[in-house]
Order: sequence, then structure tokens, then C-alpha cells
Amino acid sequence: MKNLTRDVLPERIKKAEYAVRGELVLRGEKISQELLSQNHKYPFDEIVYCNIGNPQSLEQRPITYFRQLLALMQYPDLAKLPNAFPTDVVERAKKSAAGIKGGMGAYSHSQGIAFIRKNVADFIEKRDGYPSNPDDIFLYNGASPGVQSVLRLLIRNEKDGIMLPIPQYPLYSASIALLEGSAVPYYLNESDNWGLSVEELESSLKEAQSKGLNTRALVVINPGNPTGQVLTKEGMEKVIEFCAKNKLVLLADEVYQENVYTKETKPFHSFKKVLRSMGSEYENFELFSFHSVSKGFVGECGQRGGYLEAVGINDDVKAELYKLSSVDLCPNTTGQMLIDLMVRPPQKGEESYPLYTEESQGIYNSLKRRAEKLTKFLDSLDGVSCNNAEGAMYAFPQIKLPPKAVQAAKDANMKPDTFYAISLLEEAGVCVVPGSGFGQKDGTFHFRTTFLPPEAKMDQVMDRLGKFHNNFMKKYQ
Amino acid sequence: MKNLTRDVLPERIKKAEYAVRGELVLRGEKISQELLSQNHKYPFDEIVYCNIGNPQSLEQRPITYFRQLLALMQYPDLAKLPNAFPTDVVERAKKSAAGIKGGMGAYSHSQGIAFIRKNVADFIEKRDGYPSNPDDIFLYNGASPGVQSVLRLLIRNEKDGIMLPIPQYPLYSASIALLEGSAVPYYLNESDNWGLSVEELESSLKEAQSKGLNTRALVVINPGNPTGQVLTKEGMEKVIEFCAKNKLVLLADEVYQENVYTKETKPFHSFKKVLRSMGSEYENFELFSFHSVSKGFVGECGQRGGYLEAVGINDDVKAELYKLSSVDLCPNTTGQMLIDLMVRPPQKGEESYPLYTEESQGIYNSLKRRAEKLTKFLDSLDGVSCNNAEGAMYAFPQIKLPPKAVQAAKDANMKPDTFYAISLLEEAGVCVVPGSGFGQKDGTFHFRTTFLPPEAKMDQVMDRLGKFHNNFMKKYQ
Repeated sequence: MKNLTRDVLPERIKKAEYAVRGELVLRGEKISQELLSQNHKYPFDEIVYCNIGNPQSLEQRPITYFRQLLALMQYPDLAKLPNAFPTDVVERAKKSAAGIKGGMGAYSHSQGIAFIRKNVADFIEKRDGYPSNPDDIFLYNGASPGVQSVLRLLIRNEKDGIMLPIPQYPLYSASIALLEGSAVPYYLNESDNWGLSVEELESSLKEAQSKGLNTRALVVINPGNPTGQVLTKEGMEKVIEFCAKNKLVLLADEVYQENVYTKETKPFHSFKKVLRSMGSEYENFELFSFHSVSKGFVGECGQRGGYLEAVGINDDVKAELYKLSSVDLCPNTTGQMLIDLMVRPPQKGEESYPLYTEESQGIYNSLKRRAEKLTKFLDSLDGVSCNNAEGAMYAFPQIKLPPKAVQAAKDANMKPDTFYAISLLEEAGVCVVPGSGFGQKDGTFHFRTTFLPPEAKMDQVMDRLGKFHNNFMKKYQ
Repeated sequence: MKNLTRDVLPERIKKAEYAVRGELVLRGEKISQELLSQNHKYPFDEIVYCNIGNPQSLEQRPITYFRQLLALMQYPDLAKLPNAFPTDVVERAKKSAAGIKGGMGAYSHSQGIAFIRKNVADFIEKRDGYPSNPDDIFLYNGASPGVQSVLRLLIRNEKDGIMLPIPQYPLYSASIALLEGSAVPYYLNESDNWGLSVEELESSLKEAQSKGLNTRALVVINPGNPTGQVLTKEGMEKVIEFCAKNKLVLLADEVYQENVYTKETKPFHSFKKVLRSMGSEYENFELFSFHSVSKGFVGECGQRGGYLEAVGINDDVKAELYKLSSVDLCPNTTGQMLIDLMVRPPQKGEESYPLYTEESQGIYNSLKRRAEKLTKFLDSLDGVSCNNAEGAMYAFPQIKLPPKAVQAAKDANMKPDTFYAISLLEEAGVCVVPGSGFGQKDGTFHFRTTFLPPEAKMDQVMDRLGKFHNNFMKKYQ
């Protein structure tokens, strides 16, 4: 009867998987519906969503300064109200409005509003100590569409390979599948706190070559998602040398650059900075680096703002990247404004500075406490081992599932880690993502959980998780 | 030296063209830069951008009610200020906030916020008199990404054909090129006010069949872009019959549904309504219809909000559409809120109703006046014919270029209509898009101009255009 059935959809779409918003979440939504009825069958009254790095959905408050600015940009007449806003906010809104022809409701330049790209370049320059050019900055509706645009430039057909870490953030595998390219996996070393070794990169590349693939690029996520490790400068230099030697473009996913909890011992270094510190020998190196307003202490996920810096990329290639953006007309102006606010927060001496500092420091410190608390707790459970999260928003514990649990999963026609995660959701109301959604070594099982529940709720989440886990292990012993 | 050069980019990207933000605009931006210097060489001091339907960049004011709501949603503390907002705005913001878990900064459901999808379905139901289901509504960052997602479902390879009108909005041709499908052009009849005839559809389909194409879908833009025609109910019934007979999915681009200037004689009908009025024989018909906050009197282009309704589409196909959305996480929340505001404006009796009515009517009436004024003026020029714009935001005049002008274009290595448009830009500072960016019958030449310059400026634009045109024609006589 129908012309458009699943059978006739492109294979690339059917093959793509995006577990972070997949099966577990859809099941969670159904349970949430059932929980609305008084005599539901669950031993909990609400699901805690730890499947996605979505801090404001879990009570993280937005930065006041950011929201004051956005309100004024949307409705400039508010500036007429006496004492409604700090003076620096009113000043800045006026200046920003002068830089956006037509205001928030006009299409902007497809690459992003000019003064914001300039401010991003200034931010990068200040962060790294090396020049950055506004013409190399492209704004997007979040980092994800930026990543997808770059992959569109790189992948021509199934022979084009993109190296990506396992475990990885599934945006990469899904986008590669949708473009019909080939993922070339390299494994992070769990026993070395998810470290990245060049030996592993070499052997992964060699295997891809033996399959006839033409490997074009390498993806590095630093700090790691879902794995939370922070790279050292020395490790990053080796990655750059590896790419240069093997003619690979480097994609550096640096959206968690503010979520680093080891600032004293292992600070964040951008790949741009490390690259430039390696001197003129590498001046032609090709790097795309990504950042976002969704993470850090900003946490403005729903507003969709992100950017990329195209380092060492030919002008005619950037022209094609611009064309891809122009088909979507422009990134949303609110997301663009938030990028400006993130890269140019209030400065010492400005009226908003103390509150901004208090709020952003408060969020950062709390994230750091929760990271430590949750990973330690998970690591203490029987049959669970969990690395310390040096950065990002996630714990990625390994669970040693008993053979009977693996068999029960098989009987239920599920992957073992999915079986564990679905059981956790149905029995304890905690929504996490099975490790198979990110990739893991064969025969090992993990899950990813955020450490974003508010501190007051964290004990409850750990309590639910711990009790569930112990029961589960006992049941399948 | 470089690994990523234009030569090695995917052919599909190099082939895609998006003229609305292409060559002319980039040239215009360069001239705008030069205009900043005091002794520039141009006989004008500012470029008027008529290349894109971007009303707020040309002084159209946003609807106050919409912006008040957005400001309050971004910064709810503003509700505490006495008398800062009308009471209905405060009430509504509070209710909306209750429907968005985590507020504007949290990722929403990938398909869009639930209560907004419900309101969209109610709006469609009220508009058409037939049921609409919130599960069939998908929200996007504008209508464009919605169109692209549906085309991703339809196009598997270069054998899959999509019928599209010529002239068309280049989003379609660019997206089909990027997906490596085949455009199957059908021509609108300029001498019948850009009418659509089933005979032309039949012959276009037959030609595609003779090329071995498997035609999967038909795109209709109503009101037309760039051509401005409004379809009659009878004409739409024939299109639906044609699709049903030939097993085609219908894509109805209805983003200009509020921009109809012939409401008494030729009102807008949605394809959903016409389809349902045709009875149960067509209950399995497959239709995607698109709408946007960028057009109408809303004109909030930069905020990026749009939706589609998937009518008669299988659940497992909708599940794949959801998956495509989930890879991008969610549409931006401001754009989503604007969709809610567009489909559920203030009602009679509410405090904001009078101002809302005054503003929206004012914009509509002014657009209607400008449409008539500009098309009549263009039609009056020697060597120009221009149809009446029944709807949308554009005039699409035909210019009878003298052979000497065609030769001069050839000598300059340009298409004749591009040569005309570049000359218009450089000599008179008016930025339009050549007809070749939309498609036109061989040997005919057009350009698209919006009628969006403010009324006070319209005379100046027409003056510049008229003088340029007469000089150009004299020069190449």
C-alpha cells in the first residue's frame, strides 16, 4: 500500500546507530508515561536520566549574565526599565546589537556573525598564544553539525576511512555510516586510564590499509567521551607526528575543554597550541577543532551553539564548507550569541564579574566533586572497575557480567550490556547507555553514565545503582 | 603539500549550487567593504540586499509579543519586575516553562518539545478541519533541515529521481546534488502566471522513466518560490491524483502560507486539507508538508524554527526520521518556542491581542502593497515582463536581453543573467539573484528580487533598478 516503507529506505540510514538517544531513552520515556498513573508497577516515582550530558535538565542553573544578555537581545526595549539589568549587560547588549544587522530575527552570514567570529579568534589566540583568523571560524547549531560538515568534505565513498577511538562518541560512527564511509577503529587502553598509544594507531592504520581503505583523517576526543581521559602535551605531539607522517587530517573534538578536573597535574592543551609549538615544520598541518556552548559550566545544550576552527585548510576547501553552511542559511542567532558570551565572559572590574565568577566556579567545583564521588563509588562495587574521570561529564565503568547474565541476555535477544542497562532502567529507574553504543573490546561490558544529577540527588542515584547492581550480580551468580 | 584540496573533495559537494547565498552575495560583501572607504568608486553608499527573504535585515520589526515571551523564557526572573510585561505574556511564559523540563538550556526531545508538537497539531486541525497527530510533527532548525531529512529518506542513489518545479528554490537542487540523487525538472508555465499543469508533470515523468530513473517524489512549492503563484484547490487535487497514480510521495513546501495577497480570489489551501477532502480513497497517501517561522509576518529567519507534518507515513519510517534528528540532538529551543508562538498567537480578549493584531496586519498589508508596486513597476520597464506575485516574497521578472548583452556576457565568461545581475550590483548597488540559480527555460533570462525593502526605500530601489535597466538596454541595443 505504502511507497515509503522501511524496506526501501537507504541502507546507510538503517545502519546508523545513535545510542545516546536510542532504545534505552525511548523505553525510559514509556516508563515515564506509566509513572504518571497512581498504581504503576515500578519501585520508583521518577527516572533519573544519566544517558546524556544535559546538565540543565538535571537542575544546573544557567549563568545569570548569559541569560540577561539573551533577554535584552531578544527584546531591547527592556533596557528602558530602570535597574532591571547591570550596566555592563546593557552596554554589551547595545554593542552586540550594533554588530548584528537586523537583530536576532535576521539571517546572519552563513559562516556566523562577523564580530562573534572575531571574538572566537581572539579567545583562541589568548588561550593558545598563537594567532587565529576569524575567516577560519565557522559557527554552527552546536558542535555536532560542524563535525558532520567536515566529515562530508572528507568522505567520498566506502573506501575513505576515518580513524576514531573505541570507545567513541556515537556522533562519529553514525555520521560516517550516513555518509557511507568506513570507520577505522583504534582502541583506547582501559588499563592505562583509557590512554591513547601510537603503537595502537599504527596497527589500526595498517589493518585499514590491508583492507584497501584510504584512511583520510583521525578523530581525537580530548577530554575523552565517554572515557574522560585528558591527553598530555607529549601524547598530543605524537598524535600530530603520526598524522603528518600518514597524511591524515586531524579532527580534534575539544568540547569538554573546560571540564578538566586535573588542572594542576594534567591541564587541558588544545591541539592548535601543541601543533604551533612544534614549529614551522608543521605549518601546513590540517586540523579542524570543535568547541560548543553545551558543555563546560555553560551547559546551554538546548540553545545549540558551536564552532570549528579550520587550521591550515585551503581557501577553496573553506569555500566549499561555506557552501554547505549556506544551504542551511545560518546557525541560530541565540546559539551564536552564547558562543560570544562563552568566549568573552565579564571581565574583572565589570559589574557582573563577581556573580559570574561565583556561578561558574560553583558549577565547576560541584562537577569535580561529583566526578570523583561517582567514579569512586562505581569502582568500589563488586564486579565493577571504573577509571577516574579526569575530564568531561561521564563515568564509563566496566562490569564483569557473570556467564548466567550473558545467557539471560541471549535468551532475551539482547546484547549483554543492553540487558544490564534495561534492567537498571526498569528495576531502579536510572537511565544509562550500554557500552556497545560507544564500542568496547569484545567480551568486555560497560555503560556510560553522566555525573550530572544534582549533589543532593547523587546519593539517591548511587543507592539505586548499588542496590540494583548487587541484586543483579546475586541473581546471575 | 595539503591532503585536503578541492580536487579531492566529493564530487557531490562541488556540484551543489546555492545561488541565494552564492557569487552575487560574496561580491556584494566585498563591495560593502569598499563602501566603508570615503573615496570609493561606486555611485551609491549602501547595497540593498534583495537576494534573500530576510525581512528583519530590511527593517521589518519583530512582533512584540513574540519577543516578550522569548525574553521571559530566557530569563524568568524578569517576571518579578512590576509592569514590565502584559499579564498574558507572564502567564504564558510560566505555563510554557512548566512544559520544558530544564528550560531553554536543556536538550529537548529530538523530535521537538511535546507540548509544542501538540499545539502545532491543533493549529493544523483548526486550519484544515481534519485531525492531526502530534506524533507526526517534527520540529527543526528551520524548514530547510526538515526538507533535507526527508530527501535523505527518499534518495538511495543516482537512480532515485525527485520531481521539482523549474524555477525552484535551490535548497531542493542543492540537497538532491549533495545526496547524489537525480532532479527531475518540470516547468511552470510563465505565460499562465507560472501555473502548474498535469500534462507537464506527465511528460516530465515520462522523460525521467526513459532515462531509467525511478521517480520517488514530487516537490510542490505553494505559494511559489521564486514565482509567487498560489495554487487552486482543483489544481492541487490533480497533483494529488497524479502522485497517487504514479506512486509518488508528495513534498509540499508551504512556508509562504501566510504570504498570500489574493485571499479573496485565491486563498491558500494546504495539501493536507485538499487531500483529506478527497476522501478515504486517498487515506494511505504519503505527504510531507513544511512550515517555518522565517516567513509570513513572523519573519524570524535568524532564529531558525520550522516543522514538518508527516501525513500517512509508516511508523517505522518515522522512527528512522527520529533517528536522523537524534544525531543532531535537538532543534534550538528558541526556534521551537517561536513555532509555538506562531501557531498559537494571542487570542481575542487577551491583553496582547490588539497590539499583536495591529503589528501583524500592518506587516501583511505593507507586504501586499509592496508586492503590487514592485511587480507593476518591473512589468512596465522596456524589455521586462513580470507576473503578478499572488504570494510569497519575490518578483521573478523576465528580461529580454539583447544579443549584444548576451555576447558581452560570453566575453566576460558569465551566464547572461549573471552578467546582468552583477552589473546591477556594481552599477546600482541592488543585490538580486540571477534566474539561472533557480532554473529557467533555455534562452530566457530572469532574476529574483524580494519586495522586502521598507516602503520608504522602495522608491529608491525602483529608481536605481529602472535607471540601471534602461542604461543597460541602451548600451547593448
